[in-house]
Amino acid sequence: MSFRIRRLAIIGVGLIGGSLARALRERGAVEQVVGCGRDAANLQRAIDLKVIDEATHDPLAAVRGADVVVIAVTLGATGDILARIAPGLGPDTLVTDVGSAKRCVIDAARLHLPQGCARFVAGHPIAGAEKSGVEAARSDLYEKHRVILTPMPENLPAALATVRAMWETVGAEVFDMDAGLHDEVLAATSHLPHLLAFALVNCLLDLGKPVNVFDFAAGGFRDFTRIASSNPAMWRDISIANREGLLAVCDRFEVTLAGLRRALEAGDGVALEAEFGRAKAARDAFLQRKAAS
Amino acid sequence: MSFRIRRLAIIGVGLIGGSLARALRERGAVEQVVGCGRDAANLQRAIDLKVIDEATHDPLAAVRGADVVVIAVTLGATGDILARIAPGLGPDTLVTDVGSAKRCVIDAARLHLPQGCARFVAGHPIAGAEKSGVEAARSDLYEKHRVILTPMPENLPAALATVRAMWETVGAEVFDMDAGLHDEVLAATSHLPHLLAFALVNCLLDLGKPVNVFDFAAGGFRDFTRIASSNPAMWRDISIANREGLLAVCDRFEVTLAGLRRALEAGDGVALEAEFGRAKAARDAFLQRKAAS
Repeated sequence: MSFRIRRLAIIGVGLIGGSLARALRERGAVEQVVGCGRDAANLQRAIDLKVIDEATHDPLAAVRGADVVVIAVTLGATGDILARIAPGLGPDTLVTDVGSAKRCVIDAARLHLPQGCARFVAGHPIAGAEKSGVEAARSDLYEKHRVILTPMPENLPAALATVRAMWETVGAEVFDMDAGLHDEVLAATSHLPHLLAFALVNCLLDLGKPVNVFDFAAGGFRDFTRIASSNPAMWRDISIANREGLLAVCDRFEVTLAGLRRALEAGDGVALEAEFGRAKAARDAFLQRKAAS
Repeated sequence: MSFRIRRLAIIGVGLIGGSLARALRERGAVEQVVGCGRDAANLQRAIDLKVIDEATHDPLAAVRGADVVVIAVTLGATGDILARIAPGLGPDTLVTDVGSAKRCVIDAARLHLPQGCARFVAGHPIAGAEKSGVEAARSDLYEKHRVILTPMPENLPAALATVRAMWETVGAEVFDMDAGLHDEVLAATSHLPHLLAFALVNCLLDLGKPVNVFDFAAGGFRDFTRIASSNPAMWRDISIANREGLLAVCDRFEVTLAGLRRALEAGDGVALEAEFGRAKAARDAFLQRKAAS
């Protein structure tokens, strides 16, 4: 049996929401898509690109009559959106989200959905780019990418199964994970690297050297700091939403960095080479698994 | 007048030395190239690839009769190579290097060259990749890349001019810089990012979560940690050779990171967004300058 949504509401028609709509449409898995956002020009662009069929600025209007609602706004706006759509959700409407932190979204859903969370499934597609906006949306964004769902005890098994089927339809590999573990893992693999990249660029900006240090940066610096070109408001929201997880892994990182520093101060080449080699081996293995998957 | 070397000795036929030989040869700027290294298979490969004409394991033999000697070994081996080639250098032989730290190389040259440093020019091409070995050598590696020379008071102007002409011949843009400033700038743009990338991967390795955290890493992590796939022995040498510069910029980085942490702990979204935005603007400007150059 093929997966099909009659009416899909995308709240926040950016890279993530737009790519999902495009991917479902390209696979014939959705009939109508209504897009909701604040930026009229972006919504018009989404209609022109055939990412959505209808547009509205009103989240409540967007969800009326929808089978599936996907909340794809920044984390800071998620609670407000949940509160605003709650009165418009039908008895069978399924709601899911794509936020990069999950404990805060679960807390917000429990707070703002008086009907409860039987049909609210928290999710996170691990995909994206430093680009944003519907123009960057691609129907293949989720192919071979991972999507983490963080089931809640209240969730109906059928609701979980539908959200899983939606992501599998667009080519993703779906994993279930505890929300707390999700937040710790993503703090490590995504949120901390962003914090470090932003910090490195600012550190260089403030060095006060008599030359522009960026003029003497090469490809390694370009790649290392690619994520420092990410959207500042989005990363403000993610950092604050996952503050606890991010601070915890930041503590761990500082311990690791302090260890390298001590080896460096001692001129301990054996320890440095061992630590660098350990990192290289793990990173090379990560690449190989990526290539094989 | 076109630039031409009659006999070039490359000590260390890897990515950097091999690419220079290839680039000079392709531009008809060198007649004979002798390559010196420890790995017989690599030297044979360099001959097969026509990167070099002759091979030897003996640095002293390599430099006899050479007009220009380029030392392209890891920083940890540079002092030893200088000591070994010193007796073989002719009165007009010019020697230069490609090391990523310059104060230590200058100190080693002053120590190991009894004839003095009139014809020893310290240099650093800002190019490279996480790949290494002569197979990775490319004749276009230096095109539009920057090369920093760190002149010493002893240097003959003609020696500086020749090294400058050599790099310009292969398409590089050459800058003169104080060796101390070079080491501070490169600590910031290259050595610290490597240390952070190695530290991040090791931090994740040691988290002890019940899942493989690398399985939930995406493109941002891959790019951020690309430099953690670099050669551990080479980065051990660079870190120790530029220990002072690296520790100084590490201090600065820790201050910047601590500032972000404080904003995060306080839930200060305004400060976080401002700091992230400042980094994004600087990084986007860096990319634009790169694209324009």
